[in-house]
Formats: sequence, structure tokens, C-alpha cells
Amino acid sequence: MGKNKKPPRLKARLPKGLRDIGAQEIRAREAMLRTIRDVYESYGFEPLDTPAFEYTDALGKFLPDQDRPNEGVFSFQDEDEQWLSLRYDLTAPLARHVAENYEALPKPFRRYQAGPVWRNEKPGPGRFREFIQFDADTVGTSSVAADAEMCMLAADALEALGVARGDYVIRVNNRKVLDGVLASIGVDPSADDQLGTRLIILRALDKYERLGADGVELLLGEGRKDESGDFTKGAGLAPDQIKPLMGFVQAESNGRSRTLTVMGDLVRDNEIGAQGVEELRSMDAVLSASGFADDRVVIDPSIVRGLDYYTGPVFEAELTFEVKDEKGRPVRFGSVGGGGRYDGLVARFKGQPVPATGFSIGVSRLYTALTALGKLTDAEPFGPVVVSVFDKAAMADYQALVGRLRDAGIRAELYLGSGKMGQQFKYADQRGAPCVVIQGPDEKERGEVQIKDLIEGAKAAQSVASNEEWRAERPAQFAVPEEKLVEAVQDVLARHRT
Amino acid sequence: MGKNKKPPRLKARLPKGLRDIGAQEIRAREAMLRTIRDVYESYGFEPLDTPAFEYTDALGKFLPDQDRPNEGVFSFQDEDEQWLSLRYDLTAPLARHVAENYEALPKPFRRYQAGPVWRNEKPGPGRFREFIQFDADTVGTSSVAADAEMCMLAADALEALGVARGDYVIRVNNRKVLDGVLASIGVDPSADDQLGTRLIILRALDKYERLGADGVELLLGEGRKDESGDFTKGAGLAPDQIKPLMGFVQAESNGRSRTLTVMGDLVRDNEIGAQGVEELRSMDAVLSASGFADDRVVIDPSIVRGLDYYTGPVFEAELTFEVKDEKGRPVRFGSVGGGGRYDGLVARFKGQPVPATGFSIGVSRLYTALTALGKLTDAEPFGPVVVSVFDKAAMADYQALVGRLRDAGIRAELYLGSGKMGQQFKYADQRGAPCVVIQGPDEKERGEVQIKDLIEGAKAAQSVASNEEWRAERPAQFAVPEEKLVEAVQDVLARHRT
Repeated sequence: MGKNKKPPRLKARLPKGLRDIGAQEIRAREAMLRTIRDVYESYGFEPLDTPAFEYTDALGKFLPDQDRPNEGVFSFQDEDEQWLSLRYDLTAPLARHVAENYEALPKPFRRYQAGPVWRNEKPGPGRFREFIQFDADTVGTSSVAADAEMCMLAADALEALGVARGDYVIRVNNRKVLDGVLASIGVDPSADDQLGTRLIILRALDKYERLGADGVELLLGEGRKDESGDFTKGAGLAPDQIKPLMGFVQAESNGRSRTLTVMGDLVRDNEIGAQGVEELRSMDAVLSASGFADDRVVIDPSIVRGLDYYTGPVFEAELTFEVKDEKGRPVRFGSVGGGGRYDGLVARFKGQPVPATGFSIGVSRLYTALTALGKLTDAEPFGPVVVSVFDKAAMADYQALVGRLRDAGIRAELYLGSGKMGQQFKYADQRGAPCVVIQGPDEKERGEVQIKDLIEGAKAAQSVASNEEWRAERPAQFAVPEEKLVEAVQDVLARHRT
Repeated sequence: MGKNKKPPRLKARLPKGLRDIGAQEIRAREAMLRTIRDVYESYGFEPLDTPAFEYTDALGKFLPDQDRPNEGVFSFQDEDEQWLSLRYDLTAPLARHVAENYEALPKPFRRYQAGPVWRNEKPGPGRFREFIQFDADTVGTSSVAADAEMCMLAADALEALGVARGDYVIRVNNRKVLDGVLASIGVDPSADDQLGTRLIILRALDKYERLGADGVELLLGEGRKDESGDFTKGAGLAPDQIKPLMGFVQAESNGRSRTLTVMGDLVRDNEIGAQGVEELRSMDAVLSASGFADDRVVIDPSIVRGLDYYTGPVFEAELTFEVKDEKGRPVRFGSVGGGGRYDGLVARFKGQPVPATGFSIGVSRLYTALTALGKLTDAEPFGPVVVSVFDKAAMADYQALVGRLRDAGIRAELYLGSGKMGQQFKYADQRGAPCVVIQGPDEKERGEVQIKDLIEGAKAAQSVASNEEWRAERPAQFAVPEEKLVEAVQDVLARHRT
């Protein structure tokens, strides 16, 4: 571990790319996760938790970047020299769990899991090294009804979160159709030596939404120089190879059934491609029977998903409403999650294919979207009621007042700092307290407490100071008998909640 | 990272000391955490989340074992060679957070945090390398009313979880009183060269509950050989030093005020000791005024807490009901959490003392306790209703049936495997389904569905087979018109919920 010369004073700092999360975001996020969970539960999915780290070899092969299998993750060695890595997604641990417990699990196995994942990547604005994913997966069925279900699940979850129909769309494609098109232009998707080319093509097509047709054509050909001058090497395809690919990517037509017809024509002569279109047709049938029409789920040949391990249907959940980008221009919010069928992931352990499909939500991204839509209202509009400390010797009395409020179900706290009354009011403001309870010796003798209504006080301060009638009607501070404390505070809360 | 020769097939296995957690435990644990959180919120505590890892130096100094500052944690290096470690508790990250955001935080700052922590220690039965803690801390006040509040919080949380008064007790002590006793026997608690001796004494006293007076006396003297023959070196105190310490540890009397009198007598001549007793008296006053009598919070001089960083009051939450140990003997359940005042932890960063106090619950241990008490009932007594697949061509129809159940708020799923009806029923059993919905071509033609009540079916199978009257009255399988599907399933659920 090396010798640290201990500095005279430690600097308190978060590691690069990490962040702390405060009360408001935590509460809103919890409410959001609960809503998603309730939808997933209604579909029969069961929760599963796996640990934060796994043996590296159990994750390694399916790292996002296959060329550098141990980059991108945080790894360390156990005392017996075995390498361990923090999980970088929730899919690889699921594959390990399923393979390890295969006999005992119901098949198919529907599970959901929400939790942090870690990526050892360069952090940037809004890009953190720890973030939360919310995944649903169905393992052990090759029926594309399971893939259709993923799309329905995603749509229902978004609507349950308050995203209106029309403000989102689930886009579906099928890797097999794409492989059919690749075969038709002479790229054999099952040949080992063409895996690299295939991956470059997949990633180029995946940028269609962002770069448009021109950019993708460059990436399929010689390569592309971006705005900063960086050059990305292309797939090196010839113009007569690029053309059918672009035709495919742009094949989306008005409605799922027309798109299916166009796609079917494009891969008519290729067995695997035709099979892919057939799978999409089956998904369409299930979706239509379940009431998920074109306004919620579309078939979109430009959906590719960058990961190499998908083997069939792929999907993406997109928010279609506009937000302003960093330059103030309106842009579509974009993707908040995606997934697809991966029939090979469990096979690494089992030696036989175990079909599986899943959908993963990027929780921070969705949180940002829902905030932009104003759908995340704080469940706790007020901080706790603060009982102030006029006289330190009467602490026990004050604590008893707090206890009475709390017993009545009112969030309340005793001021525990050493500040004078002015500082205590400032503290209560900072805490978002609706009111402060005060009991000095005079009030104590009269059996009374003073209630200072901070919200009314703030309004009064803003209004015309001379409007005495108004102030007399809604006093920002008033006395009540001690036994009326709970009722008086409840009145203040009720007044400001409406 | 070394070269891995990839084995022909990967073995699916969890790393040592880690575990997966299934649906039932997750649901019960969530309910438990929500209950604790509601109590903490009612006291005015706010949630905070910090990342899974921190710079090692921010954690290092306060590792449980000071002699090996980098053992006990999982550590790895960032690309700029800085050491990072997975957090081993939630207190050190809080200290970092407070120091980093000191100016912006309300003071005092009450926060709670629930989350996993990781320890690179030898795993054993019930001892995992990842486990969840639930912490509440108040930073920025030296008032022992904050310490009293921690005890109240712990007691209220346990009662909210269903632990009856009398089945738990919060035990309180004060390190200053102990230091007073140490000074009286010639061990200077503030002398650097006696820190090691002090720590050995603290850990010896901490074992009073488990080892009894004889065992502790050995550990304070020459040392102790345990049942397995392992020898633990003692503090090397002389008999006339050991005697006052043992007198102190056994000073608990009938009720807080009597114990305070006995303790006060023991440290009368020592300033720091007397101050400690005075603090306990203040806590007693706050506790009594808030209605927390001797049946909930006791003062117990044998409470020490192993950690060196406590500077004042220390507390422990103990469950007093009996469970059977591994040999079937009745034992008290024991500790489920603890904490205390640590005025030095933030000071490492700030260079000035920042008083703080906190309480930490061991969530797995509490989960075990509540399970033993039968307080964790599964919120989901049934699995989802399973709609079976009689005819694959009718998948879309079946999916529509599922959709109708789900829209009515009934948890439901479509069977997505490839098994025949018998296997589908077995699957539904395995999933805990209350009933299966079946629609073959005949039912379809008649506009009907069959409902197979699995719970009634299981009962019928257990009852006398010839009891035809009983079976006729409560049929385990029956047909209803398709439009009555939702009502019929709701009836089945209602019948078995009661």
C-alpha cells in the first residue's frame, strides 16, 4: 500500500467522479424507485440483491469494451490472489446468480434489481463513476412474448411515473434483421474474423439519432472527424455496401405493420433476417393484444444498442419531449433506458444456451427527466418543527414539548446548538421548519408556549409593512396554552399545506 | 492484472464472504428500513447518501484496528495512483462530508444513512464481508441532549418495529467516567504511550457480558486462554488496579439514579470522571422528561464499546428476549446496535474539534432478531396469478387476459416457458401463485376461462379424498365467463387472504 507520510491535516474531498446525494434527491428518487418497483411487481417480477463485487472473470468477458477486458472496472485482489471487480452493470451478476442456482430457480425466472454500479471511466459533467441502474430480466425463455413484455413494462413504468402518453416511446428492433442485412452486403455476422467490423458497424448505426445520416455514412466508410477535430476510424465499407445499410436504418414507416413490411422486403432472401422480422411480428401481435399501440411502442430499424452481446430483439425507451441543451437550443430529452435479448450470457457458465432478455433504466437520467417535467414533487414540503431553547436549564421541558409533537405524528426536533434566539430562528429557516415553538420563563409561568409561524412571517415580511389589518388577521407569532400546542401546530401545518 | 488463461467453462460462484439476497428477505428488510426511517424522520433527521468508496486516507486513521491501518478494508488504486477504499462504516464518510461542506450545512446537522459497508475480514457463519448499516448522527453540538436523543431514537425505532417494551433495553455509559477510574488506578488516558494499554483495557471490559467477571479479570491481568486453547495477552494490570475497575463495571444498581450515585462515589476525586457522571445526569433528566424511564434506557457501567474514538457517552441497544444458541441452550439475543459521542472524527479534517454523536444499527442482525420474534411477516403472501398457455398460437389472447388482471391491480404474469400444462401448474406452485387461469379452445369458444385455485387444491389434496360434500362446496377448479375473470380471481384472493 506504500508509505504515506501523513500530512498535518487531511483534506476532506470526494474521490474523482463521485458525489454525495442530499435529502431532496434521495426522497424523490426513493418515491421514483418505489413506483417502478410496484409496476415490476405487478408483472410478477421478484426482487434480487447481489453483492457489490464479483470475481473479475465472471464479469470480464462482457465488459463494454472487449479489446481491453480489464479496463473500465475497479478491481482488487483477494488475499488468495483472486481478482475481484466492482460490478459495472446488474446483468453480469444476474447471469452468475442464475448459473449458480439454476436448478432451484423457477423457469422462466423474472427478477428485478435496483442498485449502484461502478465504472472506472473518465468522469465528466453528469457522468459519474457510481450510478444506479434499475433492471428487469426474464431468464429461461426464448419466447419473444418476454421481449414484448419488457417493452410493456417500460411503457407502464414511465406512465406510472407521470410521463404522459406521447411524451415517450419505446423503440424496438431486432439484431437478427440487422445481421440479415449485413449478410446481404457480404459481412458474415457469425465469422470470428468479422466480429470487429460488425461491432464498428453496430456502433456507427447506433449514432444515427445523434449524428444523422451523413455522420453515420462517414463512420461506415472511411471515418469521421468530429467538431473537435478528433478522427474516428470507419468500418471501411464500400458505397454499395453502405447504401443498403442506410436504407435499412431509415426503413421506419408509419406504424409497426408497415415498417414490418418494409423490413421484410429488405431481408427476404436471408433466413436469419426473415426470422428476425418474424419475431418482431410476434411481438407486434402480443403488444397489440395487450393494448400497446403505435403511440407507445414503435418498430425502429435505427435502434442498434452498442453492446455486442445482444442476440435478438433490442429496445430503447426514449423521452420525446423537448428540453434545452447547454446552448439553449431545444432538443429531445432522449434515451432513459434500454435492453434486449442476450442468449449467450449465462451460457458462459452453463455450457448450454440459456435464453434471456432484459431492460435497464438509468435512474439518474430518468430522475433528471422527471425533474425537468416537474413530476418529482418533494414528499416533505416542510422541515421539522423546531422547539427553541430559551433557557438551557429547561432542556428537559423542551424535550418534553418535542415529544408531545412527535407523539402526535408531527416531525419535530429540539434545537441542540449553542446559538442565541436569533441564530435559532435562522437555523429553523435553514431547516425549512414551518414554525418555531418558544417557551421563556414568562410563558412557562403562564402555562403557555409561543408559536412563531415562519412561513406566514416570510410572507408578512414581503407584504406592505403597514398593512396592519392583514397582519392582525394572520399573526406570524402567537401564544397558546401549553395543552393546545399540538392543535396549534397542526393548524399552522394545515394552513400552509393547502 | 496478470494473464488469465481462460478456462474452457467459467465456474459460477460468489466471492468468499458474500451472498445474494432473495425476494422474501428483501421485502421484509425494505419494510423494516422504512419503519426505522419514518422514526428517524420524525426526529428531524435528513437522509444523506455517500459513495461506496473514499480516499483511503480519509478512512484510514479510524480503522477498527489501529495497528494495521490498511487492513480490514478493500483497497485499490485510482489511475493517478491515489488509494481508494470501500467504506467500512458510514461514520468516516459522514465526517468527510461534514468537513467538506461545513459552511453550507445547518448546525447541528442531523442525518441518517442506510447502506452497505464492506470489511476485508475472515468471513464465518453469519459474518459477511458486505452488510448493511443504518446510522443516525448529530454533528455540531456538544449538548448531551443529542446523546439522550440517540437513545430515544433507538428505543422508539425498536418499538416501531414491534419489539415490545421489556424485550429490549438501551444501555448507556460514559467514556469520561471510565477514564476517571483509569486515572485513579494510575493509567493516564491522555498519555500517548498508554493508548495501547487503554485500548486493551477497553476491549477487556467490553467482553464483560460475554465472558463474565472471571474472564475479564484474566484479560485485565496476565491474559486468558479461551476454550480452543488460544491465548489472548492481557493488559498486565496488578490486582489492586483490577479491583476498582471490576467494581466500576459491576456498579449498575437498581435504576438510573442509584447507579449514578454509585458511579459518582467511585470517581469523586477525579475531574474528568465527575464530568462524565454529570453528563449522564443531564441525559437522565432529558430521558425522564421525555418519558423514557428505566424500563427502556438504563445506565450500565459495563458498556464500553471497542472503538477507540469515542470521547463521551456510549450506548448499546440490546434485545433481552431469549433465543436458542447453536447448542439449543437459551441465550439473550444481545446487541443489535450501538454508538456514542466522537468529538475527534471531523477534527482530522477541520483542525478544530467538531462535536458529534451517533447510533448505528446492524441491519442483518436486527433482521435475524425480528424474524425470531415473528415480527417480519411477508408483505406479499402470494406470488402472481399465472395465466397458462394451452395453445402457443393464442399467446396474444393470454397476454390480454394478463393485462386485464394487472389493470385491476392484481399481480399477474403470463407463463413464458415451454412446458406442458402439468409443468405449468408446477411452475405456478413454485411461484406461490394463488391460482392459474386456463383457456383452451373449448373455453375460448364458450367465452369462458377456467380458474384453478391452487391453495384450495392443496387443502383438498390434504383432506379426506372422499369428503365429496366439502369438495363440492369449495371447488378447486371452476369455469367463469371471460368477462367475470377479474371478479372471480379477486374472490379467490379474498378467500385466502383471511
